[in-house]
Amino acid sequence: MNELRKDCIIDRWVIIAENRGKRPKDFIQKECEVKEGTCVFCPGNEHLTPKEILSIKGPHGWTVRGFENMYPATSLEFPQAFGRHEVIVEMNQHNKNLQDLAVGAIREVIDMYCSRIDDISKIDGIAYVLIFKNHGDAAGTSIVHEHSQLIALAQVPTLVEKELCAYRKYHDKTKKCIFCDIVAMELASERKIFENEHFACFAPFASRFSFEAWLLPKRHVGNITDLTDEEKNSLAESLKKILTALSKLLHNPPYNYYLHIAPPQEDFHFHIEICPRVTKLAGFELGSEIIINTMPPEKAAAELRALSL
Amino acid sequence: MNELRKDCIIDRWVIIAENRGKRPKDFIQKECEVKEGTCVFCPGNEHLTPKEILSIKGPHGWTVRGFENMYPATSLEFPQAFGRHEVIVEMNQHNKNLQDLAVGAIREVIDMYCSRIDDISKIDGIAYVLIFKNHGDAAGTSIVHEHSQLIALAQVPTLVEKELCAYRKYHDKTKKCIFCDIVAMELASERKIFENEHFACFAPFASRFSFEAWLLPKRHVGNITDLTDEEKNSLAESLKKILTALSKLLHNPPYNYYLHIAPPQEDFHFHIEICPRVTKLAGFELGSEIIINTMPPEKAAAELRALSL
Repeated sequence: MNELRKDCIIDRWVIIAENRGKRPKDFIQKECEVKEGTCVFCPGNEHLTPKEILSIKGPHGWTVRGFENMYPATSLEFPQAFGRHEVIVEMNQHNKNLQDLAVGAIREVIDMYCSRIDDISKIDGIAYVLIFKNHGDAAGTSIVHEHSQLIALAQVPTLVEKELCAYRKYHDKTKKCIFCDIVAMELASERKIFENEHFACFAPFASRFSFEAWLLPKRHVGNITDLTDEEKNSLAESLKKILTALSKLLHNPPYNYYLHIAPPQEDFHFHIEICPRVTKLAGFELGSEIIINTMPPEKAAAELRALSL
Repeated sequence: MNELRKDCIIDRWVIIAENRGKRPKDFIQKECEVKEGTCVFCPGNEHLTPKEILSIKGPHGWTVRGFENMYPATSLEFPQAFGRHEVIVEMNQHNKNLQDLAVGAIREVIDMYCSRIDDISKIDGIAYVLIFKNHGDAAGTSIVHEHSQLIALAQVPTLVEKELCAYRKYHDKTKKCIFCDIVAMELASERKIFENEHFACFAPFASRFSFEAWLLPKRHVGNITDLTDEEKNSLAESLKKILTALSKLLHNPPYNYYLHIAPPQEDFHFHIEICPRVTKLAGFELGSEIIINTMPPEKAAAELRALSL
């Protein structure tokens, strides 16, 4: 039976409409086309990208590489759209996906995220650094070579601001962190996907997207940059695990993820929201801001758990 | 130079990022595939749809036909997702688009919208009737035969509630309608696309989508059902005009539109928002709720005006 659900944190509504739902295989899209050779993100073509800002070096050249976006949406030079817009190439190989890397190599991507957040947060006038990833055509990527992006802004993004407001309200009332409470609740629920020593992964109660998954540190920590060394390894392991599971179940689906970190001097609970893009946002979603999700999160979590993560 | 813009009505932010932008031809997608024969919305296959609720009859059978959605997202039978979910087939031809119909035939679609809104609004527990249209794969349609949908809910949708709040706030402060003022402002701006006796069409200041267009009656009227006969004809003419223009410029692009009407007993200004889906919502948009639009509305309006509508 269908059900209208309100997000646990913000005023966001979702219709869980299982009667329109399908088996995981019905969500499988055609494989991403992968072309090598002239890729501007491949080693040897560094001259085709804007100047390198930072890279992590291995014995055979860079393994992770950051530079400004060729067509930045925000820039320190745009008074009306002040910020930064950078690309983080996640690997020197063209044909692999993030989850195919060893945990240590994913950890390097996380280290790059942390470095860039640290550096950019110090720039005068920057209020927020949003790191996100687009994988696959339906998720908005234009270059298949695996990469993340970073957009820094002079304001806290709308969605983060909403989460912060809810966070503060809940804290004022209960003296507790709403995310800590959600982690405890979801790990005991049928929406749990997996947990390891430091991270929890679950399908959120009011999942907007089929097979949506959230990753949160169990410890109350506001920013990815504040994770301990061990926690960062645990995050790399968790990312590999959930992306591998989604890829197995949905055959390399298009997806987005984004990091919600605390703005400077704010208290918050860092988390990553992973959104597979195997269904479309259509007229109802645009016109109502209510999303129809045809895959109940309880069922999605069960399918992912069944892969014996 | 890029520019961060706030919507005129609600707290919605958009980055107008012309430097990432392209010519209209760069937005053209591959043509929609159109298959005839086994289409469940074609005349002769009426037995394949749920029971007809209402149809408009012409000399050769029905011309517009309404029935419940085969997989309803909301239903009078769902206590947790109470509402209605209906389909309105806009024509008996399989291979035409809405704008290819004569103005009189589009007027029949509008009459059907009005009938269904009138009927469903009377049902106990229904707070809102949202009519929307998905055209093309990227806009979320699964059946190419042109149709609209209607989802009625026990609550006013989030986006409409936001517009209503802004409407009331502005009215309290100025004793005027924010939409009436926007119509006057936009018809005098470079974002004007066209106007006729009763309707205004323009690209909104903080357009979320490339070539987004809004249609508003010039007269202050809350619901499509309250338009005069002449105004309804003018709306049909306006819809034909803007959809023809978008189709010419972007070669039958995927698009959504939705009707924002006044909830019962509320004051509001009816309008239709048309959203071409020629770009993707990606990780930044999902994670921030700020949209990057690479086509400045002023340029989009100029391109549409240049078609001499």
